Amino acid sequence: MYTIQSMTEEIKSKKKDSSRVELFSDGVFAIAITLLVLELIQILHLESEADLLTTCLHHWHSFLAFFIGFTTILICWINHHTAFEFIETVDTRFLWVNGFLLFVVTLTPFPTAVLAEYLEKETTVAMAFFGFNYMLISIAASGICSYAYKHHLISDESRTYFYSYKRIYRYSISYTIFAFIVCFISPWISLGLYILLFVFFAAPKELTLRLEKFRTRKKNIAETEK
Amino acid sequence: MYTIQSMTEEIKSKKKDSSRVELFSDGVFAIAITLLVLELIQILHLESEADLLTTCLHHWHSFLAFFIGFTTILICWINHHTAFEFIETVDTRFLWVNGFLLFVVTLTPFPTAVLAEYLEKETTVAMAFFGFNYMLISIAASGICSYAYKHHLISDESRTYFYSYKRIYRYSISYTIFAFIVCFISPWISLGLYILLFVFFAAPKELTLRLEKFRTRKKNIAETEK
Amino acid sequence: MYTIQSMTEEIKSKKKDSSRVELFSDGVFAIAITLLVLELIQILHLESEADLLTTCLHHWHSFLAFFIGFTTILICWINHHTAFEFIETVDTRFLWVNGFLLFVVTLTPFPTAVLAEYLEKETTVAMAFFGFNYMLISIAASGICSYAYKHHLISDESRTYFYSYKRIYRYSISYTIFAFIVCFISPWISLGLYILLFVFFAAPKELTLRLEKFRTRKKNIAETEK
Amino acid sequence: MYTIQSMTEEIKSKKKDSSRVELFSDGVFAIAITLLVLELIQILHLESEADLLTTCLHHWHSFLAFFIGFTTILICWINHHTAFEFIETVDTRFLWVNGFLLFVVTLTPFPTAVLAEYLEKETTVAMAFFGFNYMLISIAASGICSYAYKHHLISDESRTYFYSYKRIYRYSISYTIFAFIVCFISPWISLGLYILLFVFFAAPKELTLRLEKFRTRKKNIAETEK
Repeated sequence: MYTIQSMTEEIKSKKKDSSRVELFSDGVFAIAITLLVLELIQILHLESEADLLTTCLHHWHSFLAFFIGFTTILICWINHHTAFEFIETVDTRFLWVNGFLLFVVTLTPFPTAVLAEYLEKETTVAMAFFGFNYMLISIAASGICSYAYKHHLISDESRTYFYSYKRIYRYSISYTIFAFIVCFISPWISLGLYILLFVFFAAPKELTLRLEKFRTRKKNIAETEK
Repeated sequence: MYTIQSMTEEIKSKKKDSSRVELFSDGVFAIAITLLVLELIQILHLESEADLLTTCLHHWHSFLAFFIGFTTILICWINHHTAFEFIETVDTRFLWVNGFLLFVVTLTPFPTAVLAEYLEKETTVAMAFFGFNYMLISIAASGICSYAYKHHLISDESRTYFYSYKRIYRYSISYTIFAFIVCFISPWISLGLYILLFVFFAAPKELTLRLEKFRTRKKNIAETEK
Repeated sequence: MYTIQSMTEEIKSKKKDSSRVELFSDGVFAIAITLLVLELIQILHLESEADLLTTCLHHWHSFLAFFIGFTTILICWINHHTAFEFIETVDTRFLWVNGFLLFVVTLTPFPTAVLAEYLEKETTVAMAFFGFNYMLISIAASGICSYAYKHHLISDESRTYFYSYKRIYRYSISYTIFAFIVCFISPWISLGLYILLFVFFAAPKELTLRLEKFRTRKKNIAETEK
Repeated sequence: MYTIQSMTEEIKSKKKDSSRVELFSDGVFAIAITLLVLELIQILHLESEADLLTTCLHHWHSFLAFFIGFTTILICWINHHTAFEFIETVDTRFLWVNGFLLFVVTLTPFPTAVLAEYLEKETTVAMAFFGFNYMLISIAASGICSYAYKHHLISDESRTYFYSYKRIYRYSISYTIFAFIVCFISPWISLGLYILLFVFFAAPKELTLRLEKFRTRKKNIAETEK
């Protein structure tokens, strides 16, 4: 006979493979990154008497915003991709944690457009919009890694490494909150902090390794001093 | 010799794998969910003298609509994804049943845009548009599950479970019709009903299990009372 | 030593799997079908004093165009998908034949938009635009099947069946040319012809089988009469 | 115990499969190629008293631009696809080299739109924009092949062939720089050079083979003359 118990077990045994989720996410990343160009094409449709080069030079912040938006989503994708090298199964709740990241990624073209339109007029507010987006991204990224670690969605042999890996995203939350606050003092220092963030997370695996080495060296020094 | 009979058999033996259909559907979901942001960027292009923050606060319904539209399509995807864990083969007619769901999904950015533009001005009509969309979604979802069950597109060992699973979508049709009618009495009660619907279908497998448990308990009580 | 001969052989031995091409094509289909909604959202941004329902009813051809455009691309996808069940390898030239189909598919939102904007004002020209698109589609579809058949991109055991299959696309060329010409006499008869075309190609495998049966029966009658 | 050494090894052993990167890239290509139609639909929304055919004929450069943009991205995809037949693994830095190509591809709809709007008014500048794009594409394509060759991301048996293959992209850099300069002398000669470029890279594997044959013949003649 078919009972509730057997049904519960069947659902649990049917562990979902993570590849499908990664594919859907990849689709969202690919579209969000490509939609950015629409904002750029926009500047050609504005009525003006100016020639092409003047129009483009006049809208230099649109190009800068396109570049920043593209780099942001590409770095998100590289980090998402790296995390999914370790994540092997998914459960329903994880779909929602990942869904929150996708929400922020699909939202990213909006602060990018804000940057393009308001960078000159309202530098601080425009930067704060983008900074707020980074805060959400780091919270989502940290959420994905913590959830995957806690609910054993990664293979057991990668656990020790993944622990170090997920830590860099927890750090990134404090970092982006700090950069967000700095923005109200000086948007340009804040911009510098974001460029540094880009450099750090351009290669998340290498960053993890470097932090681990730094930590070990410090511990060794502390032990030697004892 | 090659006869009509052998040809018919060859076509029938060439059962299509469901993975290709899921991939195409995933693509449509991913694009529909990402296009929503274009409506949000729209508000930056409206001519106005107001500053950035005032513009955004003034268009709070655009942000609300983005959030609702995103959640709707994400929930659709989660449910579609869960159903396709069980669906193993597809036939030509199923492509059309699935095509109807995709039709409603690609249409979803339209009621979302309606919500963004008309929520304040014509609350009832805007809500009714969105509610009508939910009716279509639940009919499509129920259609996919019923067709897959009836035409044995799922593996035999999952049949008993899938029967319970498909029932939740049949319930959802009556539910969304009810919410649609309520909307003309009070759009806010109707909104509450849709939030409840979101909560229910956020985790379709868990919902199925809970309903099954509830049903078993009720049956047991009835039997004890006899 | 590495010679030109060994190099040529290596290139030839490296037969490309068709799955990658299908994936890219699926992506293009999925995006083209989803972009159609942008034209629909457009009607909400037109300045007008009318309320929501009046606006929607006034733009009924936009909804009709969306429906026609969606059905067209869905049918294209179903047929493309069916052909790729048989196509197993691809060569560079096939990428260009398939590229021509993708060109027509990405173009499809344009005649759809034409239909939405000009159906009332210039019925014949708008219909002719869409009809021209169908001509291109049927040429592209026929091209794919003929090329795959001629260059043995399909497995040998499917050859006899595929021969019947590719014939239906050759017929469709004459059919769409005929419907295109009819359009200048009466756009409404032409519309009827296109609806019939939709019905035929909604299930290409079943159509092939039915035509084959019809042909066999006719041949049998002819032989009996002798 | 888990040490830095074992961690480093684990990361290195976890070689990423190239297929995921190709999938994401395919997504970006598919979207960029499909977005081009939005620029075409644009011409229907311009306020004018003209009828449909006159409007379309008046905007012939929009259609030309669509055709050129489509062909450009399709050729990029064919070449990217061909390179990834040989590339088997990827590392973090390669993701950035590939990311630069994707950056140029997502940017491509912008020079396409420039071509559509300014081809008549400012032929030279519009062509120079598009030419600059080709320079970036050839640099990115050459970068991908050189990096893959240098860091052994391709299988060893394909090395000799891939060496010839990557050379055609190094040539393309000089070619596109030359065409870019020619553009300021005569945009029409430059256009001819780009059409020739299209013909060359329409079938990159065949081009490699032909160049190799040409080189061998020349070497043989030189040896005979000695």
